[in-house]
Amino acid sequence: MLTGIQFDERSSTPIYRQLADKIADQIKVGALTHGSKLPPTRELAGQLGLNRTTVSAAYDVLEADGLIQGHVGRGSFVNFKSTGISFASSRPAEDDFPLTAFQVTCQEVITSPSATAILQLGSPAGYPPLRSYLLEEARREGVAGPNDDILITSGCQQALDLLQRVLVPANATVAIEDPVYHGQRNVFRRSDIRLAPVPVLDNGIDVDRFTRTVSQDRPSIAVLTPTFQNPTGTTIPLPSREAVVRAAKEILIENDIYGALRYTGEPLPTLKQLGGSVLIRSFSKVAFPGLRVGWIVAPKALIAELTEARQWCDLHTDQLSQAVLLRFAESGRLAEHIERARVNGRLRLEAAIQACQDHLPRGSSFTRPQGGMSIWVRLPRPLDATELLPRAQREGVSYVPGKHFAVGSYDAGTLRLSFGGLSPALIEAGIAKLGRLFQEEFERSRKEVYFEPAPALV
Amino acid sequence: MLTGIQFDERSSTPIYRQLADKIADQIKVGALTHGSKLPPTRELAGQLGLNRTTVSAAYDVLEADGLIQGHVGRGSFVNFKSTGISFASSRPAEDDFPLTAFQVTCQEVITSPSATAILQLGSPAGYPPLRSYLLEEARREGVAGPNDDILITSGCQQALDLLQRVLVPANATVAIEDPVYHGQRNVFRRSDIRLAPVPVLDNGIDVDRFTRTVSQDRPSIAVLTPTFQNPTGTTIPLPSREAVVRAAKEILIENDIYGALRYTGEPLPTLKQLGGSVLIRSFSKVAFPGLRVGWIVAPKALIAELTEARQWCDLHTDQLSQAVLLRFAESGRLAEHIERARVNGRLRLEAAIQACQDHLPRGSSFTRPQGGMSIWVRLPRPLDATELLPRAQREGVSYVPGKHFAVGSYDAGTLRLSFGGLSPALIEAGIAKLGRLFQEEFERSRKEVYFEPAPALV
Repeated sequence: MLTGIQFDERSSTPIYRQLADKIADQIKVGALTHGSKLPPTRELAGQLGLNRTTVSAAYDVLEADGLIQGHVGRGSFVNFKSTGISFASSRPAEDDFPLTAFQVTCQEVITSPSATAILQLGSPAGYPPLRSYLLEEARREGVAGPNDDILITSGCQQALDLLQRVLVPANATVAIEDPVYHGQRNVFRRSDIRLAPVPVLDNGIDVDRFTRTVSQDRPSIAVLTPTFQNPTGTTIPLPSREAVVRAAKEILIENDIYGALRYTGEPLPTLKQLGGSVLIRSFSKVAFPGLRVGWIVAPKALIAELTEARQWCDLHTDQLSQAVLLRFAESGRLAEHIERARVNGRLRLEAAIQACQDHLPRGSSFTRPQGGMSIWVRLPRPLDATELLPRAQREGVSYVPGKHFAVGSYDAGTLRLSFGGLSPALIEAGIAKLGRLFQEEFERSRKEVYFEPAPALV
Repeated sequence: MLTGIQFDERSSTPIYRQLADKIADQIKVGALTHGSKLPPTRELAGQLGLNRTTVSAAYDVLEADGLIQGHVGRGSFVNFKSTGISFASSRPAEDDFPLTAFQVTCQEVITSPSATAILQLGSPAGYPPLRSYLLEEARREGVAGPNDDILITSGCQQALDLLQRVLVPANATVAIEDPVYHGQRNVFRRSDIRLAPVPVLDNGIDVDRFTRTVSQDRPSIAVLTPTFQNPTGTTIPLPSREAVVRAAKEILIENDIYGALRYTGEPLPTLKQLGGSVLIRSFSKVAFPGLRVGWIVAPKALIAELTEARQWCDLHTDQLSQAVLLRFAESGRLAEHIERARVNGRLRLEAAIQACQDHLPRGSSFTRPQGGMSIWVRLPRPLDATELLPRAQREGVSYVPGKHFAVGSYDAGTLRLSFGGLSPALIEAGIAKLGRLFQEEFERSRKEVYFEPAPALV
């Protein structure tokens, strides 16, 4: 990252200052992320052909500016989190990570008698003790039947990709929610796959449309996130779940990545429990997204096919993380963490709903999720969430416009607010700021419409 | 794994003994691997509807048989390594794993200021500090030019899969060595890919055939492992490397997974240094195969395309392992470990070559690698390595018959001996045993040919 730096020898700005500025830029644009380590001064000096004292001076400037932090004997680390309020990413708050519990867990794993086995080549199906653990849990919960088995994947994304490879032949159709998380859409963007979008309403997918799509378009698979769907936060109610399973039983892929994050209301049975075919889950939203471990529950024959395919994709999922997450779950620390995450999640969700109610312009609507990490907002016409984003970002607030989640056509007034990573106070402050901005723009647009009619097209 | 167990209530064998036998079976067939943890007695009892004392009694039997080991307060762990001599897997010896250095490294990483950032969602291109480190190393070594960039992958296998996805359109041809590691072959076994096999001779691929294949079959890519190829252990000499690059420069994918494991002879420049396009490397053969971290060095535009594709495969490579391997490398511990691995590897290689010379039947031939983990053996006709394998296994020695590495036709007398995981004494003992067995079979076959001619086909 830092090796490409060039200096202006004729500038009046001293080299150490030029170096500090260039590193500061990289930190501010996110190329050097919070917590990452800068190269040792001696090393960077060697690479850049500079004196070591020049590099030390640059690091001193950055430390004085609060952008990096030196730790004796360990080097210098980037210490900069973007100060804006970002509703842009559906991921857990890092301030809530149970760091001590993670450290203890990791320590237990690496000093356990299994340590050597973990470091050796593993099995494509997953680290056997984790696989047994998850299968037993799934059986206990009733999401795995006697004919089901489990494949450990590198997160839900890989689960979807493997299902795409194994279950969707050339020129086939995939039924998919619209709007939907772009990663779930993009995994099916093969040139030889046709996407059949099913609209998501305030109560999850339009079940009549879904049933019609299944019978008319004959998709190879139908992929749904029935609980706290990303981006809408919506949940399919029980009668609709039953109708969905009746319509699509054998081709139903259920993404349950947010299912454990229910903050209010009563839990509903999964589609898998109602007779669906495949269930996908992950540790990434309930524990540590940086550790890439998810899993698929499906009939044994399908798991065997998926395991064969996954072997030639990447052999197997990282075993250190599998073992750490197993220990984290077995020790009860995961359950404790999810308990806390639910309490905090409820506060966040309530703050987000309240703030939407208080601050969004009249004529807006928004979903009222009972869990997960996102709320879906519809602004009144003619507001355009994409056009408004740069202004919001200048004021220090970001979100993702609805068009990024579109499969078919989309409403330009929609946007996703992901509140999972923010404190209730920041959620309130951020939505208040967005609300004012949207309101201003809304009033201006009405004046423009009224006083400045567009000239006739000639 | 253990939940599916069924008991015969009418049998005279007591339930605890039935349970012990079933668990013992799972251990012996490898479903429960060495070091894995058995469920707590209370938990397993609950799942199986048994009394806890029954499960405890079963565990006692297993412990008495030496199949599991109890650790007070931590539970019971499988303690069973297959006692045979296996030449079947090309992976490092777990006895050589630098466990203490790994533990120290892991401890440093999880208590570092970067710990939180590591646990959060990362970048598809890789953990930025690891990416910078590897790119700087690659530049220093001359395998990355100013227009090259790096993508961190989940091992070499994923690197190959991503290259397949991005660089090989429908109905295209891929030039590939024959024989070749089956994972490298299988990643290209799409129904719409044609494989153009290039024979591997004792000095690496047949360069004339390669040149002809490139010009006649016009492959989209040519994938080669020029140094210590798996399965043959062969290395392409410098003049042939130059010819290969002249013939295929822009489409050349170089798998350098074994390159660091040279035990004798002088290092050769990589194809990438000579002008090849793409280089693949991994930590898996030189550090810990269970941590899935590899990388691709390639022109920036290609890295950008690969990064986009990888995002929809599995978002990004596990960050805990990326951070641990970065620290392992930066601290100098990786270099120390590779140094030791080279010393041990040389002893293994010498033992393997000497044993082949001493024990294989006259008329056999074998490669004489200068590094890596495998030797390729050709037995004299009419010996068939596939037919001989079950007998060898009954005598406690295993290997992989050549047919598993074939792309086109194959010589039934070939086999791969992977010596990377065995001590020199076991290598000598194992090859001696194989040699005797092959010799016996060879003598018998000659007698059969001589004394018992087959009846004429009528």
